[in-house]
Amino acid sequence: MKSISLSDAVTIVGGVLSGPVKERSDHLITGINTLADATVSEISFLSNKRYKGELETTSAVAVLLPVGQAAPENMGAIHVKDPYLAFAKLQRFFHPRVKAEGQRHASAVIDATAQLATDVDVGPNAVIGAGATIGSGTIIAAGCVIGENTQIGSACTLNANSVVAHDCILGDGVILQPGAIIGADGFGFAWAGDKYLKIPQAGRVVLEDDVEIGANATVDRGAIGDTVIERGVKLDNLVQIAHNVRVGAYTVMAGQAGVSGSAKIGKGCQVGGQSGIAGHLVIGDGVKLAGKSGVLSDLASGGTYAGSPAMPHRMWLKVSAVMMKLPEMLKKQQK
Amino acid sequence: MKSISLSDAVTIVGGVLSGPVKERSDHLITGINTLADATVSEISFLSNKRYKGELETTSAVAVLLPVGQAAPENMGAIHVKDPYLAFAKLQRFFHPRVKAEGQRHASAVIDATAQLATDVDVGPNAVIGAGATIGSGTIIAAGCVIGENTQIGSACTLNANSVVAHDCILGDGVILQPGAIIGADGFGFAWAGDKYLKIPQAGRVVLEDDVEIGANATVDRGAIGDTVIERGVKLDNLVQIAHNVRVGAYTVMAGQAGVSGSAKIGKGCQVGGQSGIAGHLVIGDGVKLAGKSGVLSDLASGGTYAGSPAMPHRMWLKVSAVMMKLPEMLKKQQK
Amino acid sequence: MKSISLSDAVTIVGGVLSGPVKERSDHLITGINTLADATVSEISFLSNKRYKGELETTSAVAVLLPVGQAAPENMGAIHVKDPYLAFAKLQRFFHPRVKAEGQRHASAVIDATAQLATDVDVGPNAVIGAGATIGSGTIIAAGCVIGENTQIGSACTLNANSVVAHDCILGDGVILQPGAIIGADGFGFAWAGDKYLKIPQAGRVVLEDDVEIGANATVDRGAIGDTVIERGVKLDNLVQIAHNVRVGAYTVMAGQAGVSGSAKIGKGCQVGGQSGIAGHLVIGDGVKLAGKSGVLSDLASGGTYAGSPAMPHRMWLKVSAVMMKLPEMLKKQQK
Repeated sequence: MKSISLSDAVTIVGGVLSGPVKERSDHLITGINTLADATVSEISFLSNKRYKGELETTSAVAVLLPVGQAAPENMGAIHVKDPYLAFAKLQRFFHPRVKAEGQRHASAVIDATAQLATDVDVGPNAVIGAGATIGSGTIIAAGCVIGENTQIGSACTLNANSVVAHDCILGDGVILQPGAIIGADGFGFAWAGDKYLKIPQAGRVVLEDDVEIGANATVDRGAIGDTVIERGVKLDNLVQIAHNVRVGAYTVMAGQAGVSGSAKIGKGCQVGGQSGIAGHLVIGDGVKLAGKSGVLSDLASGGTYAGSPAMPHRMWLKVSAVMMKLPEMLKKQQK
Repeated sequence: MKSISLSDAVTIVGGVLSGPVKERSDHLITGINTLADATVSEISFLSNKRYKGELETTSAVAVLLPVGQAAPENMGAIHVKDPYLAFAKLQRFFHPRVKAEGQRHASAVIDATAQLATDVDVGPNAVIGAGATIGSGTIIAAGCVIGENTQIGSACTLNANSVVAHDCILGDGVILQPGAIIGADGFGFAWAGDKYLKIPQAGRVVLEDDVEIGANATVDRGAIGDTVIERGVKLDNLVQIAHNVRVGAYTVMAGQAGVSGSAKIGKGCQVGGQSGIAGHLVIGDGVKLAGKSGVLSDLASGGTYAGSPAMPHRMWLKVSAVMMKLPEMLKKQQK
Repeated sequence: MKSISLSDAVTIVGGVLSGPVKERSDHLITGINTLADATVSEISFLSNKRYKGELETTSAVAVLLPVGQAAPENMGAIHVKDPYLAFAKLQRFFHPRVKAEGQRHASAVIDATAQLATDVDVGPNAVIGAGATIGSGTIIAAGCVIGENTQIGSACTLNANSVVAHDCILGDGVILQPGAIIGADGFGFAWAGDKYLKIPQAGRVVLEDDVEIGANATVDRGAIGDTVIERGVKLDNLVQIAHNVRVGAYTVMAGQAGVSGSAKIGKGCQVGGQSGIAGHLVIGDGVKLAGKSGVLSDLASGGTYAGSPAMPHRMWLKVSAVMMKLPEMLKKQQK
């Protein structure tokens, strides 16, 4: 088990240590844990007020607190600007990314024309198609299927049974959780009087650097032109991105959200779980959507919305409150 | 084809036979079927009033009916406390679980350090990682991927292409439908001013005994500490369970429901399809949520809720009814 | 790169060419593209009014326009009845379906008792079970798993890591996108006083000719009797179809829609994304559901519905508009 001194931990998070433990800054730290579960060799953190009560009873040797929040008496505290970010930094220290070592399992099927950097790992029964290229340090886990001519950057992690269809582009540091499907055909059909004609989906998917796609999430290839997920976007499990969508840099979408075809989502947006965005819409930068939002019209940058059809979040709060009084309002009116 | 006498079938369900067929209790039964499709060698059942009219026309030799409900004249009836449960018992008799026989397909990749009971089946192209343990009678179907150090109990069935990531725990009798993903990384990122830092998800998933997870459903591993699905829980297809959620014993969730991070769901709950439960909430035991519910606050035990934001189901019925009168109400008010 | 003359392209779509380019009907066409991206060797199309402004600036040599819509001066135009259908026809010409050639990858596991037409392709690490039959020209891509005794017709395409469980039936021309799961167990359990008894799901899934199922979508097998997806149905990614559902011919469902058990959906319906249809309902032919609809009662043929609970779309538009005025209405009433 990895361990560091308390003072080294304080350095990693860039914080200020206080409390009696300050005298023992060489105390060994083996990890970070919740307030309820932390032991005396672990640091904890408070990032959600719901758990404030647990400050009094935690066994953690020190707790990451926001600057300005006083610690209970005699408690060890590390004051930082952002306790959640500090938690992330310590968690990353104790659980660094597994490194690729150039292991190719004998059962993997790697086309002779695929070009893999020497230190790429390829797991059991993975399949890599003709003409694919894979950059340094990338891990292709068991059961993954990489289509023909797909380009994958360096330091990516494709977890078990994920799929990237032919001719797609993944930047550096991309992570696919298990079962994610990149580059399936978009949903395009034209009615021909007595049946649907399938419209071949000839575009690609481009996932820029540092994109992460959740388990069993799906990002469809473009019909013509590409579906683009810009740098640093994070999509949670079971998210659906239709063909020719563009998702702006550093936007995050929670589980089971869906975006219909050709919609353009801005940068730095936060899309709540089970939200839906209709096709061809333009959503500005920094837009926040509460869970289960249903967006049917363009949204300007910076707003916060909720409901279906989506409305400003403040209005939705009021409307929701009044909705429960509707039966009473009707009665009153009928008097 | 398996067959039994009518009297044996009556014994299996613990019911009381009536009608003219009572004289022919050695009549051969080959299965159970719907009222519409049953033949004279099959039993049928009535568990949904919608199909009551089909009682008159069914060809079934006898119909499972709730105690107290009179059968049409001359119809064979088996009165039982719970026709649906009786149906289940007969269906289980005619379609018993396939037994594992210790077959290991030559194409399966089983790490030398994995420990499998002798009667474990491993299908073609399945992958079992280092240090994994698998108990007696468990079936690992084609294309499954089991991560390092994962422990799987006895009499489990992991169907095709399902994935259990490293260091997870599955009890006995667990069933994964095809494509289910257990132990993908939870959705955890901290904003670092110019990009997101991924928070390593160092916890596990624990699926207790007799849990069943639907096709392409996803259960994420904890960030720190575990995601726990307690005994007997049944999750339908495409359900999403985020990191550090706990789902209480015998809770069932219908298709496409989603639970956000760190929520605690009680025992014996029924969660309707496409419902969503926000993060960190506490839902009591025995709570019922109608389909498409959106839960944004803690819920006490035993209630039935609907709508988004969720409200008591009775209130929701009234509110929904009045909602359709809103345009009229507005007009009236504007007079 | 495939190329044809402009006059041949006009013939393929059955349109009428106008504008100065009419004099150069031997101009070479290499594809079809969006108004914004088309080059002078490409045709474009206008099927969504949102992009009308781009007509003025497109570099396309000619644009597919609906009959009756005048083209900007000096622009090449091909007038057709349905520009979207014309687009589909050209796109299909330039991107024809890849043909199977009877390639069986050495790593595929094909049971000795399976019967494959000679020109079936089977990709790396695909698995085909005992007694399965696969018709002429069908492509089984890498990592697919086909269960025992399943019958698959001719000219089907099963994309990477899709699964068809045992004893299912796929007609001709069926397409499964990657990760689609056909024939997982339906969600059936009976409460036995202290635990759930799993009800064996003994029915099948039948996908009729020309059905397409989206990436990571799930279609469950029947409990008793079959789940049936009729001819020409198109289901988008992450759609969930529960056991014993019947979906009528040429019905389309957008991403993340879900249908509960035993519901019967009519022919030619259009189901919006994230919609849900409750169990045992009967939905008539040609019904249209807006995205996020929640259907709780039978719907007659031909209507258009929205909202949850679903109501006629026109009413929903009015109700939604008034909803935003609710706080104001309450205030007024309280005066």
